[in-house]
Amino acid sequence: MIDGKSIKAIVKRFSTMEGVRGVIVCDADGLPIQSDLDTETTEATAAYITSLIGRARNTVDALKEGDLKFVRLETAKGEVMIAPEQGLILIVLK
Amino acid sequence: MIDGKSIKAIVKRFSTMEGVRGVIVCDADGLPIQSDLDTETTEATAAYITSLIGRARNTVDALKEGDLKFVRLETAKGEVMIAPEQGLILIVLK
Repeated sequence: MIDGKSIKAIVKRFSTMEGVRGVIVCDADGLPIQSDLDTETTEATAAYITSLIGRARNTVDALKEGDLKFVRLETAKGEVMIAPEQGLILIVLK
Repeated sequence: MIDGKSIKAIVKRFSTMEGVRGVIVCDADGLPIQSDLDTETTEATAAYITSLIGRARNTVDALKEGDLKFVRLETAKGEVMIAPEQGLILIVLK
């Protein structure tokens, strides 16, 4: 299990990267444990994230492409990068 | 509505691109209408695609990032690129 200090360090590392507008860290169940976005946006995003990763895994499995490493959503405003790590889900808004 | 000839042309254009291993075109409901992968893989993939795009749109909406343009799934073997166009869903395996 990753401790709170490490998670804060992850958020800090990503949020200081050029062009990064927000970072959310969720646990494996999609519960937000750290965020530099407002509470409403964080909770609304977290509500969909495990389901999105589940569907992404289903798609990758159907295509027999092995493990899912990363999900990127390109939008009108930029990019949402989602990394499903062991025990953590990292969401970076760029 | 895009005609069958145009769809075949889309698949051909993408499938001849370097590194592309497969192309599936679905209608807006996720029904496969053209594919150069086998039927089983095509149908299994198509079964999840509208749900995946729905969840991606939910996530992007929650983050107030405007329209979803593109979904990319990075895997152990490569990348799955999904373009939700008007009336069509294009899936490219790279």
